[in-house]
Amino acid sequence: MRHDHVITSKQLSRSDIETVLDRAAEIRDDPTAVADRHAGALLGLLFFEPSTRTKMSFETAMKRLGGDVVDMGSVESSSVKKGETLADTVRVIEGYADALVLRHPKQGAATMASEFVDVPLLNAGDGAGQHPTQTLLDLYTIRENAGLEDLTIGIMGDLKYGRTVHSLAYALSNFDAHQHFISPESLRLPREVVYDLHQEQERAQVREHESLEEILPSLDVLYVTRIQRERFPDETEYQKIAGEYQIGVDTLEAASDDLTVMHPLPRVDEIAPEVDETEHAAYFEQAHNGVPVRMALLDLLLGDEGGEDDE
Amino acid sequence: MRHDHVITSKQLSRSDIETVLDRAAEIRDDPTAVADRHAGALLGLLFFEPSTRTKMSFETAMKRLGGDVVDMGSVESSSVKKGETLADTVRVIEGYADALVLRHPKQGAATMASEFVDVPLLNAGDGAGQHPTQTLLDLYTIRENAGLEDLTIGIMGDLKYGRTVHSLAYALSNFDAHQHFISPESLRLPREVVYDLHQEQERAQVREHESLEEILPSLDVLYVTRIQRERFPDETEYQKIAGEYQIGVDTLEAASDDLTVMHPLPRVDEIAPEVDETEHAAYFEQAHNGVPVRMALLDLLLGDEGGEDDE
Amino acid sequence: MRHDHVITSKQLSRSDIETVLDRAAEIRDDPTAVADRHAGALLGLLFFEPSTRTKMSFETAMKRLGGDVVDMGSVESSSVKKGETLADTVRVIEGYADALVLRHPKQGAATMASEFVDVPLLNAGDGAGQHPTQTLLDLYTIRENAGLEDLTIGIMGDLKYGRTVHSLAYALSNFDAHQHFISPESLRLPREVVYDLHQEQERAQVREHESLEEILPSLDVLYVTRIQRERFPDETEYQKIAGEYQIGVDTLEAASDDLTVMHPLPRVDEIAPEVDETEHAAYFEQAHNGVPVRMALLDLLLGDEGGEDDE
Repeated sequence: MRHDHVITSKQLSRSDIETVLDRAAEIRDDPTAVADRHAGALLGLLFFEPSTRTKMSFETAMKRLGGDVVDMGSVESSSVKKGETLADTVRVIEGYADALVLRHPKQGAATMASEFVDVPLLNAGDGAGQHPTQTLLDLYTIRENAGLEDLTIGIMGDLKYGRTVHSLAYALSNFDAHQHFISPESLRLPREVVYDLHQEQERAQVREHESLEEILPSLDVLYVTRIQRERFPDETEYQKIAGEYQIGVDTLEAASDDLTVMHPLPRVDEIAPEVDETEHAAYFEQAHNGVPVRMALLDLLLGDEGGEDDE
Repeated sequence: MRHDHVITSKQLSRSDIETVLDRAAEIRDDPTAVADRHAGALLGLLFFEPSTRTKMSFETAMKRLGGDVVDMGSVESSSVKKGETLADTVRVIEGYADALVLRHPKQGAATMASEFVDVPLLNAGDGAGQHPTQTLLDLYTIRENAGLEDLTIGIMGDLKYGRTVHSLAYALSNFDAHQHFISPESLRLPREVVYDLHQEQERAQVREHESLEEILPSLDVLYVTRIQRERFPDETEYQKIAGEYQIGVDTLEAASDDLTVMHPLPRVDEIAPEVDETEHAAYFEQAHNGVPVRMALLDLLLGDEGGEDDE
Repeated sequence: MRHDHVITSKQLSRSDIETVLDRAAEIRDDPTAVADRHAGALLGLLFFEPSTRTKMSFETAMKRLGGDVVDMGSVESSSVKKGETLADTVRVIEGYADALVLRHPKQGAATMASEFVDVPLLNAGDGAGQHPTQTLLDLYTIRENAGLEDLTIGIMGDLKYGRTVHSLAYALSNFDAHQHFISPESLRLPREVVYDLHQEQERAQVREHESLEEILPSLDVLYVTRIQRERFPDETEYQKIAGEYQIGVDTLEAASDDLTVMHPLPRVDEIAPEVDETEHAAYFEQAHNGVPVRMALLDLLLGDEGGEDDE
């Protein structure tokens, strides 16, 4: 994977994914072994949209590898205000850094930008598009808690607009996952995503539901996402729908004892705070997994003596 | 003090304070001895309110110890905008860092946040509440310039709202300080603070004044704070009062030659620039002392081989 | 040059410039030789105006030398909002860092600030004033591509307000450069700059043109700057003038094969994207040269074992 760009979860083969997750597990077990591994290396951060956890997690990962970051800062304080194109911005910043991380509001921005640079570029979210490093940390969390073999997963909430969900669904099609999608009618998975999943995964078991109730007992993992108020023209409609898709301790009584509950965070009301105290809750662990997974990915991309892990 | 949270100056015993100040003096004398001491350690910065010197001073301290920081950035560019609770934010960022620094506009925020995290959390100001690391650097500056034994200090300006002043007054009650509070009637120390001081310090010598004149000649230290325009409904009233509490070189003619003038900065008109050139001025030194004092505190909290200094 | 401030390109002698450019070339050839040279050193960044490439380039330079930065952040999140003077701000931050970089909207700010601090202060742009490190990287790029001896350079665009242009013109007067200034009548070089150039450079060959056409074939370097829309009261007038000073591949057919095209970036429409693919384009290289040039300058100012390079 050395010197490649990481743009979409679709580009990642099962073998690519396993290489990253295995390396992440190694790093997690012995972080001191890599504490100086990329000393002197710089990661350029280009966030054209706000981000807390993705940005901090990349920054932490790079620093835990002995490297450092250079950050473009907010769009308001940058040359973008003066009308510079994205192609020019990435070509300039490429001269400062050994790899780049890009978040941008426009779908396709990462693909376009990657064509102008020679250093590895990692997509940290492009509008309604992809967010492949989120997917990798999701897969890592699933593997640690429930295993990726013979998995039954429910993915619930806003399935129409959530880039996290689309990235994850494509990646899971590499494994023999049974995927259940639970959402209100108006926020169903886009038809083309469903179509793609059936194409890509011969043994796909992709089913859609409007209610969690019927499927909850069979799930190994329940992946909850936020239903955004601004998707609804009417506040009453939002309240009614959001309420139906909230998870409390009572909801989970019908679930398997081993059910793992995930969420990409930030959450608002989707999961009640009481759930945090249960064995089901894996969402903070999931956020923390961003560090070893991004360390693994950066380590593989930056190469060096780590050649034997690359492909 | 290892693995404790530092939330309020009230929690610090005389012995705690002396441990930190002694360590700060050691570090100041030989900074190279600790230059790599916390290599690889990360300090998480969560500033929910603007700050220049506190934030930069923590960042400098951590880097002078060989460590690094990960910064949440401004609230505008963070997940807080999406409605995330403080409890969730600190639990996520805890996964990135070995200790956290929190500034928050709400009083009590640091106490609440500390209940959700396992790494040490340092309060860098919680609304009208506490700001204990400012107090430690104030105490360090007083000790270096006038000594903490048999101290006579005047604290002047806005004593009603200033968290710096309340933190300092509580800490000084651990030493046999004679504390004189000088302010306009409308900005006097809150009654509960005066009450607490009398409770906590058996030999307290706490007196209040409306004018500096009568007490100035007896002072070892004069600690000036800013009177904020926005506290006054009427501009004329503000001008009149602010003028009475300004310090110029002429004001200081009545003072002891050894008087030390301090200010937490930023200042506006409270101290005339001419005072900067006199031997009295200690406010820039005071700001700079933030670095060794915070280095000492971080070093004690992060522990490691430094165990013999911990308690 | 050790422990000096770097405020204006006028203060730099030919020998100073050559010292920096020679050191930059050494660093470029073997960056690993300096990768730990300033470990533990901190550079304070004070940007009172937005900047992407200057700020990131200084940050990259300091980190590539093994050092680190402490950043004041945006004015909105700093004590400046509370009415602190620049003199106070720099005196506080001086206590955190081993050198300071200052960008400020007011002309003369860097000179004033430098009088209050003991650590080296580098001017990164003061309003319509100077931007000497930009000049040094421009000179480095010229030397690498066309040589500084017997140079014929065209400088085109907004010559009235561009601080980059004024800094460069003064510096080039140290070398026997033939300088051609190409601009619309309303954006000509200020009369005092022309006067100064004639004073400082006995053999000055300073000529002004309204059109590029007549002079293009004789140029070794064409330095293009942005014509800002906001300089024109009338959009039609702007469109007409901006159009006349745009460079496309067709424009360059009349140029020497060896012509080097430079631009301080960001560009908007001044240079067509097709030019990027030609051998003429040196503007991304120019931006990247900011790193070795600023590394060289910081290395010389921070001194240490590097004494033999200092003067």
